[in-house]
Amino acid sequence: MKSKKFINDPDNIVEDTIEGFINAYGDRIKKLSNSDVIIRKNLEKGKVGLVIGNGSGHEPACIGFVGKNMLTANGYGGIFAAPGPDTLYDAIEAADTGEGVCVLISNHAGDVINSKMAIDMAQDDDINCEGVILYDDIASSPKGQEEERRGTAGTLFSYKIVGSYAEEGHSLEKVVKMAKKVRDNTRTLTVATVPGTSPITGYKMFEIDDDEIEIGMGVHGEAAAHTMKISTAEEIAKVMCERLIEDKPYLEGDEITVIVNGCGQTTYMELLIFYNEVQKILNEKGIKIYKPAIGNFITTQEMGGIALGFCKLDDEMKKMWAKETDAPGFNI
Amino acid sequence: MKSKKFINDPDNIVEDTIEGFINAYGDRIKKLSNSDVIIRKNLEKGKVGLVIGNGSGHEPACIGFVGKNMLTANGYGGIFAAPGPDTLYDAIEAADTGEGVCVLISNHAGDVINSKMAIDMAQDDDINCEGVILYDDIASSPKGQEEERRGTAGTLFSYKIVGSYAEEGHSLEKVVKMAKKVRDNTRTLTVATVPGTSPITGYKMFEIDDDEIEIGMGVHGEAAAHTMKISTAEEIAKVMCERLIEDKPYLEGDEITVIVNGCGQTTYMELLIFYNEVQKILNEKGIKIYKPAIGNFITTQEMGGIALGFCKLDDEMKKMWAKETDAPGFNI
Repeated sequence: MKSKKFINDPDNIVEDTIEGFINAYGDRIKKLSNSDVIIRKNLEKGKVGLVIGNGSGHEPACIGFVGKNMLTANGYGGIFAAPGPDTLYDAIEAADTGEGVCVLISNHAGDVINSKMAIDMAQDDDINCEGVILYDDIASSPKGQEEERRGTAGTLFSYKIVGSYAEEGHSLEKVVKMAKKVRDNTRTLTVATVPGTSPITGYKMFEIDDDEIEIGMGVHGEAAAHTMKISTAEEIAKVMCERLIEDKPYLEGDEITVIVNGCGQTTYMELLIFYNEVQKILNEKGIKIYKPAIGNFITTQEMGGIALGFCKLDDEMKKMWAKETDAPGFNI
Repeated sequence: MKSKKFINDPDNIVEDTIEGFINAYGDRIKKLSNSDVIIRKNLEKGKVGLVIGNGSGHEPACIGFVGKNMLTANGYGGIFAAPGPDTLYDAIEAADTGEGVCVLISNHAGDVINSKMAIDMAQDDDINCEGVILYDDIASSPKGQEEERRGTAGTLFSYKIVGSYAEEGHSLEKVVKMAKKVRDNTRTLTVATVPGTSPITGYKMFEIDDDEIEIGMGVHGEAAAHTMKISTAEEIAKVMCERLIEDKPYLEGDEITVIVNGCGQTTYMELLIFYNEVQKILNEKGIKIYKPAIGNFITTQEMGGIALGFCKLDDEMKKMWAKETDAPGFNI
C-alpha cells in the first residue's frame, strides 16, 4: 500500500513544510531570505549562538527547537539529507552576535563533513566558532568507541541544556565545555516496531517482521543491532534500561533526566506506559528521574518505535533543562 | 498484522497510562486516591473549577489538558468509554473550591447521560454546578441541527479559552457564558486516511480503502459522511476549509484560531504542509489566523488523519487562548 500522506508535490515537501512552519510561528522565528536556515526573530547581543544542521523528515526536529533557551538557528537539508556547508555557514554567520557560535553536530558522515567545512569557512571570516560532535546511540558502536556512535534522540538534551546555558551569557569556551559534558553524560537506544514511509517515494523505508522489533535502529532506518520478539512494555523497558545503565554506567544515587521519544506513530498512551516501566526500573536501582521529556520530538516519519535516552544531571544542568522555552516543538 | 503497541496487560492499559502520567508530571498534577480523576495539585480558592470527563485512548486528551489556564480536573473512563457518573461527581466535588464548577461535555451519548447525572448529584449536595454540551463536528449533523453534532477536536478551544477565563476569577455564570460562546464560534471537520488499532484487541478499528480518505470521521471511527480519492494536501485543505467556512459562516474580516490536529500517525511535517494550505485559503478570503495549534492533541490511537477546527475570536478570547499553561499535553 502506498503512503497516504498529506503532501503536495513530493519535490517540494521541505519548502512546503518550512513555509507552513514560518506561517504558523512567525511571531517568534523567521527564515533567512537567501538560505535554508530557520532562526529566532530577535537575537540578543552578548550571547553565544547555538546552531545545528540536520536533514528534514524528523520534525519537529530540529526547526521546532529554535527558540529562547534552545537553538539560535537551524540549517536544514532535504529529506534525510545533511544541509550543505554553505547553508551551515549562513546559519553560523546569522547566529553570531559577536560572542561566537557553538555548532552542535549529530554524528552522521554528511553532517560532520559539512559542519566542519562551514566552521572552517566561518573561522576564515573571523567568526569565533567551534563544533561539538554529539554521539549517543549505544547500538551503533561498542563501549570504548563512543566517538564512532551515531547521534540520535539523546541530542535533545544538548539542544535544551546547552541552549539555556548559552542564554545565560557564558563564553564560547564554557558553552563548548557544557556541550561536551551533556554529550558525555548521555546514552540512547532505539527500538522500532513498524517502518516509516518515505514521503518522497511513498513506500516503506525498510522491513520489520510482523512478530519482531528491532533494537538499535538508527534515525534513518539504519540497520539494528538485534531483533527481539514482540513483548510487553515492561520487558522491552527492562532490556533497554539495562543496556543503557551498564554502558555509561549510571549508578545508584545518580539523578538523571529521561527522554521517551516516540519515533512517529507510537501513541502518547504507549509512551506513558513505557515511561512508567522505565521509572520503576530506575527507582529500584536508586536512580532518580528529574522532569522527563515524553513525546514525539525526533521522528523518522511515521515509524513505530521508542528512543529511550538518559542524561546524568548536576544541579546546574537541572536548572538549564527546566527553563521555559518558546520553541514550538519542545514541551516538558 | 496484529498491533505492536508498547503495552503490558491489555486489561490494565488505562491504569498503566495514568500511573506513567502521574509519575512523569507529579510536580503539577495528582490522581484522586479513590477515583479515576486527574486534578491539579494546588487549587486556588476564588476560582470556578473546569471539569471534563472522557474515554481514554485519545491521549494526550484529556489528562494532558489539566493545568493552569486549562482544566481543573479530568474524570477518565476505559478505552473509548465514558467515565461513570460517580467518577464525574468526584471530579466536580474535588474541583470545587466554593465558586462552583463548569462541566464541559463533549457530545457523545454516554458522556452526556453520565455528566448530567453527576451534575444532578452535585447540585443535590449544594455544589454550584452547570454543564455545557460541546458540539463542533459539522459532518455528524446538518446545519440548523448543531446540537446533534458530535464533540471532536475543536473542543480543545474550549478547554484552553474557558480555562484561562476561569483562572481570571469570573463567576460561574460568566464562565458558562464563555463556554457557550466558544462552542458557538467553533466548527471542526476530520479526515481519516489510515485506521487506528484497538489497544485492547490489537486489531484495526475499521477499514479504509487503500486509495480513499474518509471525510467526516468521528474520534472513535464513527462512520464518515463521504469518501474522496487520495489527493494533495492542497485539495484536501480546500474541501475542508470550504465546508467549515460555509457552515458557520466565517466571514471576511474575521479573526480566528485554527487547530490542525493530527489523529495519531500523521507527522508534524504533514500537519505543517496542511496548515500552510489552510492559511493560504483563509487569507485569500480575508480571514486572519491567530496563533494556530498544530500537533497531536486529540488522537484516535495511531489513526492517520487530520481534524481541522476553526474558532472565531474576539480580543478577550485571543488573550485567553494565548495564556501560558503548564498542562503537559498542550503547546502553541
